[in-house]
Amino acid sequence: MEDNKKLEKDSVGLVEPKKIAFKEPLTLECGEALEDIEIVYETYGTLNEERDNAVLICHALSGNHHAAGFSKNSDKRPGWWDGLIGPNKAIDTNKLFVVCPNNLGGCHGSTGPKSINPKTGKTYGPDFPLITVLDWVNCQAIFSDLLGIESWQCVIGGSLGGMQALQWCLSYPDRIKRAGVIAAAARLSAQNIAFNEVARQAIISDPEFQNGLYLENNKIPKRGLRLARMVGHITYLSDEAMRDKFGRDLKKGKLNFGFDAEFEVESYLRHQGDVFSETFDANTYLIMTKLLDYFDPASEFQGDLVKTFASIKAKLLVVSFSTDWRFSPARSKEIVNALISAKKNASYIEIKSSHGHDSFLFPEERYTKAINAFLDN
Amino acid sequence: MEDNKKLEKDSVGLVEPKKIAFKEPLTLECGEALEDIEIVYETYGTLNEERDNAVLICHALSGNHHAAGFSKNSDKRPGWWDGLIGPNKAIDTNKLFVVCPNNLGGCHGSTGPKSINPKTGKTYGPDFPLITVLDWVNCQAIFSDLLGIESWQCVIGGSLGGMQALQWCLSYPDRIKRAGVIAAAARLSAQNIAFNEVARQAIISDPEFQNGLYLENNKIPKRGLRLARMVGHITYLSDEAMRDKFGRDLKKGKLNFGFDAEFEVESYLRHQGDVFSETFDANTYLIMTKLLDYFDPASEFQGDLVKTFASIKAKLLVVSFSTDWRFSPARSKEIVNALISAKKNASYIEIKSSHGHDSFLFPEERYTKAINAFLDN
Repeated sequence: MEDNKKLEKDSVGLVEPKKIAFKEPLTLECGEALEDIEIVYETYGTLNEERDNAVLICHALSGNHHAAGFSKNSDKRPGWWDGLIGPNKAIDTNKLFVVCPNNLGGCHGSTGPKSINPKTGKTYGPDFPLITVLDWVNCQAIFSDLLGIESWQCVIGGSLGGMQALQWCLSYPDRIKRAGVIAAAARLSAQNIAFNEVARQAIISDPEFQNGLYLENNKIPKRGLRLARMVGHITYLSDEAMRDKFGRDLKKGKLNFGFDAEFEVESYLRHQGDVFSETFDANTYLIMTKLLDYFDPASEFQGDLVKTFASIKAKLLVVSFSTDWRFSPARSKEIVNALISAKKNASYIEIKSSHGHDSFLFPEERYTKAINAFLDN
Repeated sequence: MEDNKKLEKDSVGLVEPKKIAFKEPLTLECGEALEDIEIVYETYGTLNEERDNAVLICHALSGNHHAAGFSKNSDKRPGWWDGLIGPNKAIDTNKLFVVCPNNLGGCHGSTGPKSINPKTGKTYGPDFPLITVLDWVNCQAIFSDLLGIESWQCVIGGSLGGMQALQWCLSYPDRIKRAGVIAAAARLSAQNIAFNEVARQAIISDPEFQNGLYLENNKIPKRGLRLARMVGHITYLSDEAMRDKFGRDLKKGKLNFGFDAEFEVESYLRHQGDVFSETFDANTYLIMTKLLDYFDPASEFQGDLVKTFASIKAKLLVVSFSTDWRFSPARSKEIVNALISAKKNASYIEIKSSHGHDSFLFPEERYTKAINAFLDN
């Protein structure tokens, strides 16, 4: 049954990751140059002869290249955006060639802190440089060259993924026809940065972090990663989503006057934190939170988004979700209003959804229809 | 100059804490009985002959008995509610006798985890029982007896303090004439509990916590306390307050591509966390977050607040703040609507303020006038 499910007509089925090696070093915003970059990625659907049906999927903070289908027959859960990517889905693999790379600095196969630094022969660890959304997009542009994709039909993503889509419009206006900027913001607020800082301090102050040299020292800062994920997770859900999902339900039906998890929401958060701490790399998490904090394309234009957007040629779809308080609808409207003032081709939709920031992961009907129409148009 | 300030006519001036010893043990909701309870407290103003002008101030999560005036001539900052308590202030010490105890389980002088357990001769530490808002109010009732105060003109507090005021109305309807329930809620939401759980896990997972025996082992779980305070502090401020106070301001005017605090908001949070970790007791913090989570007086009435409030005789003033997202105006309205349905004497005011949950600490004019009128009425 499980296997049959994966062969159902709305799934891309079993997928194999591929890897591509860069021929040249990439110079980063911080000034350092990274050599021997490798990017791991997945593709779904077929590139047409004109090579003009390619869609780039950009992942968010803790995401990776496995966006759709199943890595193994035994997988219980498909890729993180499987609800939107597949035959006859919002991002229709019958028509489109869909590409999702693991970003530079990641911990799922692309060059990152766990990779060997060719200059030292040792893992990068804490020496992996701090990268930016612009660096990611520059890296993705070289990746596009290597795939032989001159222009993307669309670059799309949620949260930090939406920021990459926006940066593509600014950095490579002639190589992107459409951009899907979903549940994102043009820059982080002080509160957003504050939550990231708590996550970072949780990791850095974990004694097992060892100044970032935990791998060399055979340690893992699990406590810090666990706390970072717990606090992050609260910001991905809404108050409403948590009320619907957990309310004040008690695991054992009554108070136990102790510190075992007694409310369901406590168990859930602990479990999320535990799973994350077993699978994610701490240095990658630190880098990715900084990357979020640093994103601010308007800073070159004294904060003026209208001027920032002047060079854009792509059509944009901006999507927000009613209960998203991490990047609220107001943050999306800032982008849309500036796009309209800059006389760009932009449409906006606010989706009613109770899943908070995580809503961008769920195939709510109005949302998937809007994306499908945007891509089909 | 500094000293003169403390003698200005709107300050209660220098204050000395007092201590009172209970003669009988107090049986708690969890079933345990605490012996030899001592409560430290401050008073401002004078108890009149009729003994009917007394106001009980209830502190919140990390508060204490020092609500107004200065403990020492050298103090730079007055008590935590000095903006509201003093001669001719909202809670007018020219007319009222104001009493503020440090609650049971606290770490500022009242019996708590740092006290000696008379049964063992050692500090309670992690053996201090989990207490509830009802236990606090029962303890305050005995404290009132010892002070010779039969009935409070008003019991008032913000946040967890407001919950105590509400519990007083329910537990001792004949001993309370007015209750000020400020920036509070009738029960915590799943999101509220989730934030408390992150704070607890930060403390408990700190290796220096030593299963709560840190004092015995000459350790302090500073890392955990620091993180707990950082995450708490984000929930006390609003997105708006943080934007106004810090925005995206950089300490050194430019990005430094490293993990030193570079945004102002990062420095601020780290500082708040550091100060707290030097001064607050970890076991007390754990107890007080649990006390918040457990508060749910309607649970005895199948969640029906109207039925819960049936026994109330006091007049209530419920106050909320526009940018408070920890206990939002909607949570205050739940209380008010139930009070009205239960035909109680209740008034409600929502104050426009940018300070988030912390707004209850600031003497905004409409707010202080509302409290003053409520007490004068």
